Amino acid sequence: MFTTNPFDDDKLREECGVFGISGATDASALAALGLHALQHRGQEAAGIVSFDGGEFHVHRAMGHVAGNFDRDDVIRALPGEAAVGHVRYSTTGETALRNVQPLYADLASGGFAVAHNGNLSNAMRLRRDLVRQGSIFQSTSDTEVIIHLVATSSYRTLLDKFIDALKRVEGAYSLICMTPEGMIACRDPLGIRPLVMGRLGDSVIFASESVALDVCGATFEREVEPGELIIVQGTETRSLHPFGKQPSRPCIFEWVYFSRPDSIADDRSVYSVRKEIGAQLAIESPVEADLVIPVPDSGVPAAIGYAQQSGIPFELGIIRSHYVGRTFIQPRDEVRHLGVKLKHNANRALISGKRVVLIDDSIVRGTTSLKIVQMMRDAGAAEVHMRIASPPTRHSCYYGVDTPERAKLLAARLNTPEMTDYIHADSLSFISIDGLYKALGEAARADVRPKYCDACFTGDYPTNLTDQDDVAAVDQFAVLKERVG
Amino acid sequence: MFTTNPFDDDKLREECGVFGISGATDASALAALGLHALQHRGQEAAGIVSFDGGEFHVHRAMGHVAGNFDRDDVIRALPGEAAVGHVRYSTTGETALRNVQPLYADLASGGFAVAHNGNLSNAMRLRRDLVRQGSIFQSTSDTEVIIHLVATSSYRTLLDKFIDALKRVEGAYSLICMTPEGMIACRDPLGIRPLVMGRLGDSVIFASESVALDVCGATFEREVEPGELIIVQGTETRSLHPFGKQPSRPCIFEWVYFSRPDSIADDRSVYSVRKEIGAQLAIESPVEADLVIPVPDSGVPAAIGYAQQSGIPFELGIIRSHYVGRTFIQPRDEVRHLGVKLKHNANRALISGKRVVLIDDSIVRGTTSLKIVQMMRDAGAAEVHMRIASPPTRHSCYYGVDTPERAKLLAARLNTPEMTDYIHADSLSFISIDGLYKALGEAARADVRPKYCDACFTGDYPTNLTDQDDVAAVDQFAVLKERVG
Amino acid sequence: MFTTNPFDDDKLREECGVFGISGATDASALAALGLHALQHRGQEAAGIVSFDGGEFHVHRAMGHVAGNFDRDDVIRALPGEAAVGHVRYSTTGETALRNVQPLYADLASGGFAVAHNGNLSNAMRLRRDLVRQGSIFQSTSDTEVIIHLVATSSYRTLLDKFIDALKRVEGAYSLICMTPEGMIACRDPLGIRPLVMGRLGDSVIFASESVALDVCGATFEREVEPGELIIVQGTETRSLHPFGKQPSRPCIFEWVYFSRPDSIADDRSVYSVRKEIGAQLAIESPVEADLVIPVPDSGVPAAIGYAQQSGIPFELGIIRSHYVGRTFIQPRDEVRHLGVKLKHNANRALISGKRVVLIDDSIVRGTTSLKIVQMMRDAGAAEVHMRIASPPTRHSCYYGVDTPERAKLLAARLNTPEMTDYIHADSLSFISIDGLYKALGEAARADVRPKYCDACFTGDYPTNLTDQDDVAAVDQFAVLKERVG
Amino acid sequence: MFTTNPFDDDKLREECGVFGISGATDASALAALGLHALQHRGQEAAGIVSFDGGEFHVHRAMGHVAGNFDRDDVIRALPGEAAVGHVRYSTTGETALRNVQPLYADLASGGFAVAHNGNLSNAMRLRRDLVRQGSIFQSTSDTEVIIHLVATSSYRTLLDKFIDALKRVEGAYSLICMTPEGMIACRDPLGIRPLVMGRLGDSVIFASESVALDVCGATFEREVEPGELIIVQGTETRSLHPFGKQPSRPCIFEWVYFSRPDSIADDRSVYSVRKEIGAQLAIESPVEADLVIPVPDSGVPAAIGYAQQSGIPFELGIIRSHYVGRTFIQPRDEVRHLGVKLKHNANRALISGKRVVLIDDSIVRGTTSLKIVQMMRDAGAAEVHMRIASPPTRHSCYYGVDTPERAKLLAARLNTPEMTDYIHADSLSFISIDGLYKALGEAARADVRPKYCDACFTGDYPTNLTDQDDVAAVDQFAVLKERVG
Repeated sequence: MFTTNPFDDDKLREECGVFGISGATDASALAALGLHALQHRGQEAAGIVSFDGGEFHVHRAMGHVAGNFDRDDVIRALPGEAAVGHVRYSTTGETALRNVQPLYADLASGGFAVAHNGNLSNAMRLRRDLVRQGSIFQSTSDTEVIIHLVATSSYRTLLDKFIDALKRVEGAYSLICMTPEGMIACRDPLGIRPLVMGRLGDSVIFASESVALDVCGATFEREVEPGELIIVQGTETRSLHPFGKQPSRPCIFEWVYFSRPDSIADDRSVYSVRKEIGAQLAIESPVEADLVIPVPDSGVPAAIGYAQQSGIPFELGIIRSHYVGRTFIQPRDEVRHLGVKLKHNANRALISGKRVVLIDDSIVRGTTSLKIVQMMRDAGAAEVHMRIASPPTRHSCYYGVDTPERAKLLAARLNTPEMTDYIHADSLSFISIDGLYKALGEAARADVRPKYCDACFTGDYPTNLTDQDDVAAVDQFAVLKERVG
Repeated sequence: MFTTNPFDDDKLREECGVFGISGATDASALAALGLHALQHRGQEAAGIVSFDGGEFHVHRAMGHVAGNFDRDDVIRALPGEAAVGHVRYSTTGETALRNVQPLYADLASGGFAVAHNGNLSNAMRLRRDLVRQGSIFQSTSDTEVIIHLVATSSYRTLLDKFIDALKRVEGAYSLICMTPEGMIACRDPLGIRPLVMGRLGDSVIFASESVALDVCGATFEREVEPGELIIVQGTETRSLHPFGKQPSRPCIFEWVYFSRPDSIADDRSVYSVRKEIGAQLAIESPVEADLVIPVPDSGVPAAIGYAQQSGIPFELGIIRSHYVGRTFIQPRDEVRHLGVKLKHNANRALISGKRVVLIDDSIVRGTTSLKIVQMMRDAGAAEVHMRIASPPTRHSCYYGVDTPERAKLLAARLNTPEMTDYIHADSLSFISIDGLYKALGEAARADVRPKYCDACFTGDYPTNLTDQDDVAAVDQFAVLKERVG
Repeated sequence: MFTTNPFDDDKLREECGVFGISGATDASALAALGLHALQHRGQEAAGIVSFDGGEFHVHRAMGHVAGNFDRDDVIRALPGEAAVGHVRYSTTGETALRNVQPLYADLASGGFAVAHNGNLSNAMRLRRDLVRQGSIFQSTSDTEVIIHLVATSSYRTLLDKFIDALKRVEGAYSLICMTPEGMIACRDPLGIRPLVMGRLGDSVIFASESVALDVCGATFEREVEPGELIIVQGTETRSLHPFGKQPSRPCIFEWVYFSRPDSIADDRSVYSVRKEIGAQLAIESPVEADLVIPVPDSGVPAAIGYAQQSGIPFELGIIRSHYVGRTFIQPRDEVRHLGVKLKHNANRALISGKRVVLIDDSIVRGTTSLKIVQMMRDAGAAEVHMRIASPPTRHSCYYGVDTPERAKLLAARLNTPEMTDYIHADSLSFISIDGLYKALGEAARADVRPKYCDACFTGDYPTNLTDQDDVAAVDQFAVLKERVG
Repeated sequence: MFTTNPFDDDKLREECGVFGISGATDASALAALGLHALQHRGQEAAGIVSFDGGEFHVHRAMGHVAGNFDRDDVIRALPGEAAVGHVRYSTTGETALRNVQPLYADLASGGFAVAHNGNLSNAMRLRRDLVRQGSIFQSTSDTEVIIHLVATSSYRTLLDKFIDALKRVEGAYSLICMTPEGMIACRDPLGIRPLVMGRLGDSVIFASESVALDVCGATFEREVEPGELIIVQGTETRSLHPFGKQPSRPCIFEWVYFSRPDSIADDRSVYSVRKEIGAQLAIESPVEADLVIPVPDSGVPAAIGYAQQSGIPFELGIIRSHYVGRTFIQPRDEVRHLGVKLKHNANRALISGKRVVLIDDSIVRGTTSLKIVQMMRDAGAAEVHMRIASPPTRHSCYYGVDTPERAKLLAARLNTPEMTDYIHADSLSFISIDGLYKALGEAARADVRPKYCDACFTGDYPTNLTDQDDVAAVDQFAVLKERVG
């Protein structure tokens, strides 16, 4: 019942989820199911491209998978035994339909569709060079850079062109491509963003998380390895490692917040890791209290772990309305301040006079924490102790996660005592970075080649950041503004 | 975070929620907030009528409050310091907009708007008589009967006409009426459906549940008493008891499922009563097991109560997607069976090899229970024990709750051992009727004049059921079929 | 190609068209065709009620027949062999869907649907009395008065109740009613508004104009006589004259502008009457000129008549865009003045240096005439002579035609020389009232009992105007404001 | 009032209209007006791109200009003093929004928007070559070929790149391009499609027809010459002739049907040319008859010319409904045959017993002619003589006009006596090709270098038809199918 909370304004947001299926009678219907299970990874837009052996078919829409891809006419207009799909959250406010993935191009070799989770850190530099040579971009998406690199590559075969293109990009990418010859899935050399592989009868499925396999009735086979290309042609699969093998750096925040608690990765259950984080937090930062209360819904597993470790009872102190999924925009200034209770309401009868421990997964800007502490006090809490299931978030992500600019990150501006004051809590503690690695089964964070990308906590970025060092690139594009709807 | 679950097909459904406010600058904006908090009581349609001192204004819409009543143009078109609102779930499949409440009529005394929660058990008999005398009905709603009784009453003042009308109806009603002279709230003599009163500054608010007061920032004042009429004129309120006083019979199912857990009624917290039901269930029907798992979301408070009483750990064994609020209609037969996992997915890593106790609030048709037990077994559960936080549901409700016909109620057809077999559980227990009364603070159910209406469990209906004894009445109306949209 | 012009702001407007069909397999599909042919009589809303032998079905919509009643799902939702339909233009700005006809009521005798063309001149008085006796109105339409009079009549049979109701109303009405027993068509004793009868195989059709029969492939049978009731039951028809017989007074403006030129009424072609009006105008008000130019499109037949009589060539001096049907609302103040040319553009090459005679059907406020004369001068016309195919419009209509209040009628404020100045024409003439009767085959207008209702020209109203004499009635109703959409 | 008839299924259709304005405060509002006046040249989709000095803004929509470009929010989202617009009729059934013009690309030199009227006859050959070199097309429009030729040109300045691109294409094009440096209008060397230039204060306007200038209040300056490029920068204009000068071949069908009758081209009024064609037809093919009847609305000017020349009275024998603009799709097979009368109804009272001459502009498939002759006979015509204001249409157009494949052109299959039989007329005549040239002021058609492109009548195509000779090119593209809406 407690998937990550997609409705909260004050969270980091995963930007994308991808899904691909090859060799299935109902490819696009299964893709719709899979994307629905990945909806928490991108709520703004969704798209599916199918291939029927002769033609490609596409449907893209702003909004959720449900309401767009559960219509019979839509699924019937996406025939074929192969399909690739995408859900998307946009970082830039650029919401034009032409940016909704999967992207598609007619190459000399035939049609080419691609869905991308991640972000390239040299996209603008590459785009500038391509435009100078005569390439015309139809979107502002960095994914389109990859397509143009393929189209203009001087290699002969499509596979060689594709590998040539990947060798020129830097950053994070989990890609699923569909061509008349077959499907190609691949993951960047560091494996920053996740990608798993499953099977359903004779068909092969790729997806950002294992829950997308569950919902299709498919079995989990394995993760796509960092730096691996898997080519599916008919019922055969081939694996390539064109970049050689090197230590990986998967995103640690997937464990803290992005992935669904019922997903499995790296042979671990996300739910059990989150409980373990909560238990570790109870060991590191104990407090005398009457109730452990999760900030719904993402704080629940850590709260159960904290309660079990500490022996303090787990209780529902904050009731969350089911209906906030449909955003309620209060149109009158006079009553807008009341809006917060539409979403979360304190269980006053429970809280009044009690010492409470609030468990949340992270603090980004701090705005929600401030409101929730106040809500506890208004409901009569005697003491409010906040415990956070991740270290302080101090740095922006350039690998496909929507983070506010650094100046807006509370932990980039304030130390923990200052943050405690800011949110008006009686105490505030974050799990330590080593504690987090412990919950993941490591002894501690390795100083050299740590096992995860934890740049948002540590500032230790595992790739070059070309575009960040080349600010001029940003401003050179003529920009076309298109209204949607 | 755990309001009652509005998305489940296999639940009894409250049919309505009502809200009224008098003397507030932003009456209709506050009504929209209040209705949003009552959304779980009726998801099919919503309406608000406002009165600006001269004219009445109405907006009615199919669908949710959010998306319809959070638009600035809608709220601006509902000016005035008084407003009455309604959310509705339809029993009959009759979804025409003209049935959406509040209903409105131009009487000789001026405009008259009314919102009704409940159901009259002699509506068809009364309607037949009214039509014979020349009344023309615009809806198929039983609420309109009350308006015609008022319009044709031979009494002189509107208040006398209204009391005359109420004396002729039988059944359950919580009503909020708005006229140019003021607002009238009332509750049937047995108080079957709930109605509370609050204040926000100088304004008076009536609502089905106290959460609607919370969301407006209003304070809870008291419940409207069974058989009481409260008249609000300007800042003055008057209370009448035109039916005398008699023992009340409020609906017991509000405590089991309908009301939000953060609502307060009869000086009790719904959440704490549900936890107490869970604890009582653990005393009555203990079992050796490894995990207590709630059926999300309505089973959560009882599961916490069961876990705390039994000492078995509370765990999230079923993960519920946030995105099922937007119904996903799977268009392809071939993959429709996969749909159940869109909504609920087993936390396989947790469950595998474990003995689990599942806690749900009720069993209606049994279809969901069957699927969830199977889901536990598919995820590798060693044993599956089902515990239900209400007695077996064996009888239909005629007081404003949507129940299937008796033949479809599992407990009307099968005894508990047969039900255990039917859902393939290792064991199944319901709380006893006396246990339920105990959780509500009584020693046991009184045979004579029990404190609650529990007819759905016991068949002991507290009023006449005139229309049920007069089947011919149903078929006499010419019927107008209107498509919506 | 030249139906009456529905797009012009400065015209009198017919308020309604009605259509009924009994005994046809595709009743609602034929009703949709018939209403489409009557679209010029009401562009704001349309509705059809069908009866399938057991149930009534309704679809009502704001907007045109096309786009609403040419959808397969709509027609399939209107089954049965009988249907009644209505197109409507609203006088009051009250555009709520509940006012869209046909109206429907469940009477004690069963369902009752009615479509009404015309206007009652004592509706408000009757409504006030009905409300005092307990009737509840759902619309602000005067048609609903008739239904309540039927519902509350003390007569026994539906037919007697209906005749009782008609005897209490005054004003103009052409009505088509549908009940389980059959269809009833009737026309007020003076026959102010038109109504014709046709046959298509075994089915009987009633419609406002004969073109609605043409479009269905039906044959014209006869006009419904003033004061006649025709009852259709199965294949049988019965005629009643409950009011006795008296001289009729059909609306003369139907000949001037409202009816389509291809309609036949009173054994005359509307087109040929309009040509005759033009010829008569040429005889009464000749002028030396080079070109006769119609104001499109309603002025065309009279212009042809004028040209043939005078020998001056008929030419298209004003080109009308086909695309103005879809109103183009210019959003920018700065360029709004350009809008007039979207609709009508001068044929400059033709007009430059020429003396032109402009032929229009009527002048209401004068705003269009002013613009069109100016357009001719801008295009280089040497002289502009305006000739109008009706007498000056000086009085409001209370019988179902939308007229501006008297103060806005140009001819109520100014005499002909003043109007000539106002529109900046070189000369201006109207046909005389006797000339108009001549074109219709009379020697002249009879001072006593003239053959037509010509109150808009003469102020000679053929009925009482009860509500006009009882202004207080207007303001007594509480008013419900409902937004559409 | 009689623009060309856009509603008829059996007409050749102009595919596009273009409009550009530079240096006007309300550029996009004026563009919307201009496109509305050009709506008859393309009803399927419309688009405007504006440039505000820094950014380009675009809005494209399926459907008419009215309803899309008269919304204040749309115009406000198109700021700037320069705008280019396009209306489009699609030949291929490919209706995706991405094909709606103006097209836009980010080139290395900045933004580049282009609107194109015409059709390239070597587009597929060029596209194949470009894709092989790595260009990625986003539309299936031949216009995009021009953009890629510009982007990949090895010349240095944008103007040189543009001229380089034009030298590689063959066929018909009137282009309006907008760049940060200014606006460029040009017309192919033969001037097949029209393009005119006007001024409004300091601003310069380009448009397909002069009516678009009228509606903006602009003055006509001159035609853009065949093979001419006009560059507008600020208030300065420059003219280039990069292809040298050569005899032009403008499309003769613009005079017969495409252009609005109130347009001026080549110093002639379209209306007066059409009247002259009618007069010439009366000389070539006289007949004894009682009435001259135009087929509405495009046959009207020629019918007036025929009537004036022959002395037979001009009459409205066919009445056309104004409401067919909104297509009425009859959903029931049983009544679909009635649909023709929705659009055109015979004026039976006029026609009965008379010998009629019907005047139409052209015969394409012959389906409409067949129905209209039958409609005259059903209305009682004694004789029906059809006269056509163009020669027999025997060949397809490859220059931007939608023609059926040759096998469906009636005149490609049958000679005139056979066509007379096919449409059941008493006689049928077409104007001769020399007669048509006479009406345009020539002595006759010159065998060598005739003054107009008349390939649809003669098969004499003035350019190579590369793609027609290279059928394989058509099938090589992978195709992406996208549903609209």
